[in-house]
Amino acid sequence: MSNVEAARATARIPRHKERENDYTHEMAAMRREFARQQTGVDLSHVGSYSFDPSILPGNIENFTGVAQVPIGIAGPLRVNGEHAQGDFYVPLATTEGTLVASYNRGMRLLTECGGVKTTVLESYMQRAPVFVLADALQSREFGHWLAENFEAIKAVAESTTRTGKLTHIGQYAVGPLRHLRFNYTTGDAAGQNMTAKATFVACEWIRKNYPGKTTYILSGNMDTDKKHSHINMLLTRGKRVVSEVVVKRDVLQRLMGVDTRELDWSRHIFMSGSFLAGVANNGAHAANALAALFIATGQDVANITESHASCTYTQLLDNGDYYWSNTLTSLIIATYGGGTGLATQRQCLEMLGCYGQGKANKFAEICAAVVLAGETSLVGAMMAGDWLESHEKLGRNRP
Amino acid sequence: MSNVEAARATARIPRHKERENDYTHEMAAMRREFARQQTGVDLSHVGSYSFDPSILPGNIENFTGVAQVPIGIAGPLRVNGEHAQGDFYVPLATTEGTLVASYNRGMRLLTECGGVKTTVLESYMQRAPVFVLADALQSREFGHWLAENFEAIKAVAESTTRTGKLTHIGQYAVGPLRHLRFNYTTGDAAGQNMTAKATFVACEWIRKNYPGKTTYILSGNMDTDKKHSHINMLLTRGKRVVSEVVVKRDVLQRLMGVDTRELDWSRHIFMSGSFLAGVANNGAHAANALAALFIATGQDVANITESHASCTYTQLLDNGDYYWSNTLTSLIIATYGGGTGLATQRQCLEMLGCYGQGKANKFAEICAAVVLAGETSLVGAMMAGDWLESHEKLGRNRP
Amino acid sequence: MSNVEAARATARIPRHKERENDYTHEMAAMRREFARQQTGVDLSHVGSYSFDPSILPGNIENFTGVAQVPIGIAGPLRVNGEHAQGDFYVPLATTEGTLVASYNRGMRLLTECGGVKTTVLESYMQRAPVFVLADALQSREFGHWLAENFEAIKAVAESTTRTGKLTHIGQYAVGPLRHLRFNYTTGDAAGQNMTAKATFVACEWIRKNYPGKTTYILSGNMDTDKKHSHINMLLTRGKRVVSEVVVKRDVLQRLMGVDTRELDWSRHIFMSGSFLAGVANNGAHAANALAALFIATGQDVANITESHASCTYTQLLDNGDYYWSNTLTSLIIATYGGGTGLATQRQCLEMLGCYGQGKANKFAEICAAVVLAGETSLVGAMMAGDWLESHEKLGRNRP
Amino acid sequence: MSNVEAARATARIPRHKERENDYTHEMAAMRREFARQQTGVDLSHVGSYSFDPSILPGNIENFTGVAQVPIGIAGPLRVNGEHAQGDFYVPLATTEGTLVASYNRGMRLLTECGGVKTTVLESYMQRAPVFVLADALQSREFGHWLAENFEAIKAVAESTTRTGKLTHIGQYAVGPLRHLRFNYTTGDAAGQNMTAKATFVACEWIRKNYPGKTTYILSGNMDTDKKHSHINMLLTRGKRVVSEVVVKRDVLQRLMGVDTRELDWSRHIFMSGSFLAGVANNGAHAANALAALFIATGQDVANITESHASCTYTQLLDNGDYYWSNTLTSLIIATYGGGTGLATQRQCLEMLGCYGQGKANKFAEICAAVVLAGETSLVGAMMAGDWLESHEKLGRNRP
Repeated sequence: MSNVEAARATARIPRHKERENDYTHEMAAMRREFARQQTGVDLSHVGSYSFDPSILPGNIENFTGVAQVPIGIAGPLRVNGEHAQGDFYVPLATTEGTLVASYNRGMRLLTECGGVKTTVLESYMQRAPVFVLADALQSREFGHWLAENFEAIKAVAESTTRTGKLTHIGQYAVGPLRHLRFNYTTGDAAGQNMTAKATFVACEWIRKNYPGKTTYILSGNMDTDKKHSHINMLLTRGKRVVSEVVVKRDVLQRLMGVDTRELDWSRHIFMSGSFLAGVANNGAHAANALAALFIATGQDVANITESHASCTYTQLLDNGDYYWSNTLTSLIIATYGGGTGLATQRQCLEMLGCYGQGKANKFAEICAAVVLAGETSLVGAMMAGDWLESHEKLGRNRP
Repeated sequence: MSNVEAARATARIPRHKERENDYTHEMAAMRREFARQQTGVDLSHVGSYSFDPSILPGNIENFTGVAQVPIGIAGPLRVNGEHAQGDFYVPLATTEGTLVASYNRGMRLLTECGGVKTTVLESYMQRAPVFVLADALQSREFGHWLAENFEAIKAVAESTTRTGKLTHIGQYAVGPLRHLRFNYTTGDAAGQNMTAKATFVACEWIRKNYPGKTTYILSGNMDTDKKHSHINMLLTRGKRVVSEVVVKRDVLQRLMGVDTRELDWSRHIFMSGSFLAGVANNGAHAANALAALFIATGQDVANITESHASCTYTQLLDNGDYYWSNTLTSLIIATYGGGTGLATQRQCLEMLGCYGQGKANKFAEICAAVVLAGETSLVGAMMAGDWLESHEKLGRNRP
Repeated sequence: MSNVEAARATARIPRHKERENDYTHEMAAMRREFARQQTGVDLSHVGSYSFDPSILPGNIENFTGVAQVPIGIAGPLRVNGEHAQGDFYVPLATTEGTLVASYNRGMRLLTECGGVKTTVLESYMQRAPVFVLADALQSREFGHWLAENFEAIKAVAESTTRTGKLTHIGQYAVGPLRHLRFNYTTGDAAGQNMTAKATFVACEWIRKNYPGKTTYILSGNMDTDKKHSHINMLLTRGKRVVSEVVVKRDVLQRLMGVDTRELDWSRHIFMSGSFLAGVANNGAHAANALAALFIATGQDVANITESHASCTYTQLLDNGDYYWSNTLTSLIIATYGGGTGLATQRQCLEMLGCYGQGKANKFAEICAAVVLAGETSLVGAMMAGDWLESHEKLGRNRP
Repeated sequence: MSNVEAARATARIPRHKERENDYTHEMAAMRREFARQQTGVDLSHVGSYSFDPSILPGNIENFTGVAQVPIGIAGPLRVNGEHAQGDFYVPLATTEGTLVASYNRGMRLLTECGGVKTTVLESYMQRAPVFVLADALQSREFGHWLAENFEAIKAVAESTTRTGKLTHIGQYAVGPLRHLRFNYTTGDAAGQNMTAKATFVACEWIRKNYPGKTTYILSGNMDTDKKHSHINMLLTRGKRVVSEVVVKRDVLQRLMGVDTRELDWSRHIFMSGSFLAGVANNGAHAANALAALFIATGQDVANITESHASCTYTQLLDNGDYYWSNTLTSLIIATYGGGTGLATQRQCLEMLGCYGQGKANKFAEICAAVVLAGETSLVGAMMAGDWLESHEKLGRNRP
């Protein structure tokens, strides 16, 4: 007990002095007991977890227990991607009633139409330091110097990481400021940490080697980490992934009672609303798929703020079928590192055949395919007029 | 077994014919076994949960198990709100290393500065149907008719709900379309379902009673559900909540090694980057706090796409202290209904004294206070130059 | 000469001490001579104007001469509006080759299709002061007080103007700030000045009568004067005007060699580009029509930044015809006051039957109709592949 | 007369069959007479112009006369740029009272503070065709092919123009679409026409040489011509120009009665309003300067929709002085071609020493400097509380 920082008068949360010994059942129990003393609440359910806390360093501090988020499975969803091929059963962690049922229905539609085609267009992770110069002229000179020294900067940045590769540096100038956006490929990791370190080392090198005077901040808010931004939609953050399907007119009619012409008509209307509202996503509800998948598979859930950005593009075909595509512009996912190796998270990734190295593109394709299933299901239900009914039946537990 | 839909050749996920009998340990186990047969993966950890599945109707379909998301606690955080008052220990469910430690540090700073002042400015939940008229002139006439018949529409809408109140209907016209945004107060529920039903009934009434010809779609994509939008920032979706603190110059210097003048200088720089990037949030990383809180407490996690929108406003005071405010414009939370009553989720809400009816404003204030703790911590670390170091130490598990 | 401020060593621009005597041919000539001395340039053409400078007070200071902007006329354009009815010949002041020819072609198309239907949906001019309160709680209280005292504020504001009516005050809160958007109807004037004065007087009244402590700035940048903004698109600044046409399939084919199905196909594509680019206008080039009309008719030309915002909404009809609408959300125009009474400007307004009081809605409708003519002409030419050819033939004078 | 298309029963505007003979006093008079017959309005003032219409081909069709827009001169404004150096007297064409006076006041402030530093950071003009592929995978392959064949494409594009140089092609993918943004430097011309032609020829080459199947539209609406867009702010359209000044505390106090600390305080407030409103320009009123300059100097006035986008960045310095910068991100100007060679327009450019080849950067710097003068003047007046008073005195002619 002497190695544990005692909860003092000010009620400090118990923590073991040695970090490696803080990730134990005992310390977790001690913190639950502390919480009980402070708040009167017995964290018995929170304390019910099935893994050894020693796997947790790098994922959490002050480990106390777990949130148990219900998982439902949906599928099969046929995916005809470059990396994901076959019929998938998808674990969705959510507490929103009807979500699993709705995605399940969309998956059936897409599968009966032959499956979803998926393509990862490009992948970049960014850090965006800002350099402050004496004036705009110095900023321009600095920008030229950067471009001329790109290879050296790239070598320095990449010296800090096995997998990260610096591909290009975007420059965005305002007054005496030069916002930079370092773009990396990061293998199967989401890469926020590796790019932060690589960029930091590069910035230090720049500061020391640039002949002029400059200072910098490691982020000038153009990364734009953990938030939606227009620059992400334009220039990609994480992966830019497209899912495409040709919805067959007769299948849609049979399964959802809606005609493809109604979809086409409604699309113009949705675009007007999207434009006026100033949306991050002119589709329906990508965030539902992504949140449920991210929780189930150990992604950094805060990244759904970036990841939910998307653009829908459709065309009514001459034969009455309906081409429907969804482009996720900023999908941030990993199949290695982060929370992907935790107990339930790893099992869910494994269900999809997506755990570990070399699986990021496959998982990205599955995410995109699931999103598209949800788009077709929700819009189909809306146009059929039975969207509300489903929610009434499946989605209300109390109020 | 005869009541269970057999997994057929096409491998359909097992489901009990009677919905009330589908939420059992047996059915969950049967689905895990099905997943094992289909994917070869043993969902042993996913199957480790501590509650009776019979509580789950309305939260999930095809219940199979749980995602166990690690929870760390942070605090104490002193909140001086209207509804939240006192020192709070906050459960944060995350797999991102350093997150809990960073928020903990920010909470200490805010608490030592006297705590966070929090205010809920307003609360609205929306549904946004679109009515299609013959032309723009008919749309204008329809708009006038709506305004004149507001009381009748309100009565119809409110007939479907005990707690929902229709406060006003925004009208946004494009060509022959009239996008409407029905704004409700919804008590302690987030209210997406109750407002959908109320709006549906109102739309049916409008369609039948409007003397002219019109048709409608229940959402024209201006709600804007499960996605960020500019209209949400302007006109509020969910709760508009402000957190404020005066960061004392000496406390900041002592705890973080940064001067308030540096914060003030950096703020102008961040604003330039935010503006250029076209961000949903000109602060740092509200989404981190919200995702961790939402998972822990059973919120609809997809709503962090709307909820993370925020506006930072600061001023360097004459005495060198630093006024810092954060305004969440679209915080969507509930303390009743949805996932709030599930096993671990309820315990986490109870830790904050926020479970059940009458607690939504209190919980909103705590969310806002936690967000501000994270803002001060991250920006402080960035300006002190030790942000990266923390991530290196705490936040890397593998790659 | 003694009444004229002599051009001193520092070369001050000559100005008559008495303002009413500064608007003369002599003073204009003196300033041209001053410019000649300072820059060596003979402003002979600038000095060629056909009116008496005594009409200029309130429009310009340091009057020196005129810019002669070429005017071409286009038409007839059939307008079937509420206020504008008949065939119009439209004066367009521009230096961009092909502009007049292109609009002329569009006008022919629209006229042969039966003309343009136009509708003014609503009209508001704004001033947006910001009040600074002690904290967010005070801001909320202040907001309630404002709403309760709306009638008194309205009376005070309207005491300063014959035509301006305060219709509603939008409130947008951030931290301790309360941005207000005073919305007025302003008759046939654009109304920026009348609303500034009315709002100033109202703000002074508020400052004196509000029981709490507050200060204000007359604009917090939410007006948003002389710049595009999303709030303008949502909530209207100036006039929200719709133009609509049903483009007949055969007429389009005959005049432009394009099929309506191609238009429909291209529309989806344009929407994707518009969304990605983050445009103020998802149509083609409303600004061309508006700049040419504004210069010709004495509008405040800087207002095309607000006025060019627009939303296109189209539908391919079952019979193959094509419904096409354009909604200008922020059209700021006047037919009285400002530059509308100047010599050439008044003649151009008179050509349209739009000079003077009671004509603002008519002129707004014509503006919208001309915009739509340009949309159909440019998109038609683009899809027919002869857009470039026209520019090559008509639009290049030198480089 | 036999060569003139007679005004027929349908009242067609008179036009000479031979284009070169259409630009005459006679034809202009004939059209004015036609207008008189059709509308009853005598276009005597419109008919008062001082130049030979034979200079007009390439600038207008159906030339009928001119708009006489009053010009006032302001200055001197000291500019310390790379290209613009010295004290300038600036011709401003406007009908908005107080505009010239206000800019004049700002010019005095800036000049007394030592003048404005100006820097052109970069210059690009764009055309943005969109290529349609079979699916997203084909779109990705097409994108790679484009990158690999850039030099060939560049050669083809540049074969059409003496001055245009293709610097890079941005690629923005959605579904099966690949939006391209061809970026050119265009010398002293704005370059919309030369880049259209060059891009058209390049697109034709691509279509013929790409081994796969594709079709294209010459613009997919990402150029984004004649409209504001976020992509322009990020990636520059026209010229990205910065103006900077250090406002001396005592000079500001003396000339405007405002303290630099008030400016700093207000800046934070303006940023909150700008962010909420979703503005194209977080400064005050760049459009006023640009509209007045563009009309006077023969620019394409519709381009102020793009050109008014700007970002303000400021810092209160330790000595109490105030660093103030404005960055125009999309300034589209020319000193050669377009309307720059017309009679009054050329004289105004000559006043600034900016007519002809080799002057575009100089003129861009002057534009930026004038914008900054207006920013300081308006904000200074607003904070001093005398903004309204000026408008009352100078800016109201009637209503």
